[in-house]
Amino acid sequence: MIPIAIDCMGGDHGLSVTIPAAVKVAKLRPQVKFLAVGDSQLITAALSSQPQDVLERFEIIHASEVVAMDDTVEVALRRRRDSSMRVALNLVKEGKALACVSAGNTGALMAVARYVLKTLNGIDRPAICTGLPQKLGGKTNVLDLGANIDCTATHLLQFAIMGVAKSKAVDGLENPTVGLLNVGTEEIKGGETVKNAAELLRQSGLNFVGFVEGNDIFTGKVDVVVCDGFVGNSVLKAVEGAVRLIASTLKEEYKRGWWSKLAALFSMGVISRLRKRLDNRSYNGAMLLGLNGIVVKSHGSADIFSFSCALDNAIEAASHKMLDQIGSVLNEISTRDDVAHNGEKVETLKEQKV
Amino acid sequence: MIPIAIDCMGGDHGLSVTIPAAVKVAKLRPQVKFLAVGDSQLITAALSSQPQDVLERFEIIHASEVVAMDDTVEVALRRRRDSSMRVALNLVKEGKALACVSAGNTGALMAVARYVLKTLNGIDRPAICTGLPQKLGGKTNVLDLGANIDCTATHLLQFAIMGVAKSKAVDGLENPTVGLLNVGTEEIKGGETVKNAAELLRQSGLNFVGFVEGNDIFTGKVDVVVCDGFVGNSVLKAVEGAVRLIASTLKEEYKRGWWSKLAALFSMGVISRLRKRLDNRSYNGAMLLGLNGIVVKSHGSADIFSFSCALDNAIEAASHKMLDQIGSVLNEISTRDDVAHNGEKVETLKEQKV
Repeated sequence: MIPIAIDCMGGDHGLSVTIPAAVKVAKLRPQVKFLAVGDSQLITAALSSQPQDVLERFEIIHASEVVAMDDTVEVALRRRRDSSMRVALNLVKEGKALACVSAGNTGALMAVARYVLKTLNGIDRPAICTGLPQKLGGKTNVLDLGANIDCTATHLLQFAIMGVAKSKAVDGLENPTVGLLNVGTEEIKGGETVKNAAELLRQSGLNFVGFVEGNDIFTGKVDVVVCDGFVGNSVLKAVEGAVRLIASTLKEEYKRGWWSKLAALFSMGVISRLRKRLDNRSYNGAMLLGLNGIVVKSHGSADIFSFSCALDNAIEAASHKMLDQIGSVLNEISTRDDVAHNGEKVETLKEQKV
Repeated sequence: MIPIAIDCMGGDHGLSVTIPAAVKVAKLRPQVKFLAVGDSQLITAALSSQPQDVLERFEIIHASEVVAMDDTVEVALRRRRDSSMRVALNLVKEGKALACVSAGNTGALMAVARYVLKTLNGIDRPAICTGLPQKLGGKTNVLDLGANIDCTATHLLQFAIMGVAKSKAVDGLENPTVGLLNVGTEEIKGGETVKNAAELLRQSGLNFVGFVEGNDIFTGKVDVVVCDGFVGNSVLKAVEGAVRLIASTLKEEYKRGWWSKLAALFSMGVISRLRKRLDNRSYNGAMLLGLNGIVVKSHGSADIFSFSCALDNAIEAASHKMLDQIGSVLNEISTRDDVAHNGEKVETLKEQKV
C-alpha cells in the first residue's frame, strides 16, 4: 500500500473538495491508502456516505487547528503546531506516509515543510516545480516557481538536478534535457548569475542544451526549464492570466447571436478535447522539491478534479521513489570532482564581483 | 503631415512586408507621409505598381547597408553606418521624421537608437514597452520587455513614468494606474529592489496601486505594469508560447474527423472575432521609450497586417506628442522635492546593503 497524507482542511474549499477528490482517487487506485488529517468529526461526517470498502482505505488523523489562507509564515510556524498541514507533514517525517498533499497557502506550506522535513543533503534551498503542457503532449518541468526570489548560480544548478530527478521519476524519462531560461539563446545574453549557472550546468554532466526562452516552455525543446523564483512565478501567473482571457473571450464569442450558439453546440467535442489537453486543472499539483519527503501543493482554489490531479502527482512521485532519484542524480554530480571544484570557483568569482 | 521613417529593409521579410504595409496605412491615413529608407532601386520597384496619389505620400531615402537579424550590436553600431536602420533613426534626430519604425533586430535597434538619439533628460535607461490585451478591451502597457536585465529601484520608477506617459498619449487615459510586478500582492513580498521601487512609486505622485502579479497583466487591474527586462521578456515570450500552443491545439482538434470539421465551418465567425480581439499580430509594435525620439520596434517575423499595426502605433505616438507627455510627467515628478530626496535615500540605502 502507498500511504498518502492529505491536509484535508487546507485550500479555499477544505473538506468539500479534498474528501470527494480522495474518494475518487481511492476508487481508481487500489494500491493507495489515505491518511486524512484534520477535524476528525468533520472528516468522519464527510466520509459517512461512503461504502465500507472505501472507508477501509482511509485513516482519519485528528488535528485541532487549520492554517488559514491568509496566515503569515510566522503564524503558521509558531502558532499552529497542531494544524492539519503540520500533522500531515509530520506523518511523512515519521515514515507513516510517503507523501503529503495540501492546498494550503504556499508560503506556509514551504516554511512548515522545511521546518518539519529539513532539506536534502546537497540542496541549499527547496524549489517549487510544476509540469506544463508541451506541443507534442509531454510535460516541461519548470522550477523555481516562487520559493526563491534571489538565486545564485549554484541554486540554479541544484534546481536543474531536482527537475531532472522529477522528470525521470514522475515522467519516466531516461535522460531529460535541461534549459536555462534567458532573454535570448546566444551565449552572450543574460546577467552574471545566469552565465555562471550555464557554466556550472555545462560541466555538470546533466543533459544541458543551453539557454531557452519563455516560449520554449511550451514547444517541448527541453524537459526541464530552470529559472529563479521571481521569474518563474511571474511567468506561470502571466500564462494563467492569458489562458483565462482566451477562455473567457472564446466563451463570450460563442454566446454572441444564434449562429455562434449553434457553432458552440457543434464545437462541444472540440472544446472538451482542447480542455482535456490543456486544462490547467489537470496540471495542478506543484512539487516542493529538495525536502526529505514528497510534498505536493495544490492550487488553493482547486476543485475536486483538480485536487485529484494533485493527489495523482503525489502517488506517482511516491511510487516511483522520487527522493531516491534526486539522491542518485545529486550523487552523480557530486562525485564529479571537477564540477564541484569549478562550482566553487564560479561562486567565489561571483561573490567577489558583488 | 506626420512624417514617419521606415527601415524598409529590416525584419525577416524586408521590403515584401514593409512596403505593402506602408501602402495600406497610407491609403487609410491621409495625414501621414512615409520616408522609406533602404535600397532606393528596390524600394522604387516595390512601389512601382502604386498609383500617383499613393506615390506622392512616399519619399525614398537611400541607404546602402542593412543590419542583418544576426548582426551583433557591435557590428550594427560600428560597421553599418549607412544602414537603413541608422539612416531612418537619423531622420528622427534631424527632425525630418516624427517617428521611426523598424523590424530589425532588437538589440541593434536599441543600441543604434540610443547612440543616435540619446536618452531623454531624467531617464537613465530606455525601456521596451508594449500594450497587451485586457479582459474588458483596454490595453496594459508592460515594461521593460528586455532592454535592461538588471534594474535599480530608480530605473523601475522611470519605467513607470514612461509607461504612464505612453498610456496617456497613445491610449488617451487621463490618470493611468501603475502596478509593480511581484510574486504576491502583500507588502512583505519580493526582494529589496522591488520593495524600494514600491516606496519610490508610493511617493512619486503617480497613480500607484501597489504590487500586481503576472495574471493582472490581462485582468485590467492596472494600466501600466512595471518590471525588469529579464522578467518582462520571459513573461512576454512565455505568453506567446502558450497562445501558440492553444491555437495549434485548437486547429488540430478542429481537423479531427468530419464532425469537428463541420464545427470548424460553423465556428469561423467566432474564431475570426476571437483572433481580432486577441491576435498578437494586432499588438505588434513595441515602443523604445526614454529616447529623444519615437522609435517603434516591430516583430522581426511580422506580416503585412502586423507591420501596419506597428506603423499605426508610431503614428498615434507621434500625433499625440508622446515625448512631450513623457517630459511633462517627468517634470511633475522631479518638482516633487520629497520624492527626489527620498529616492536618493532609498537608493543609497540599497547600495549600502549590497
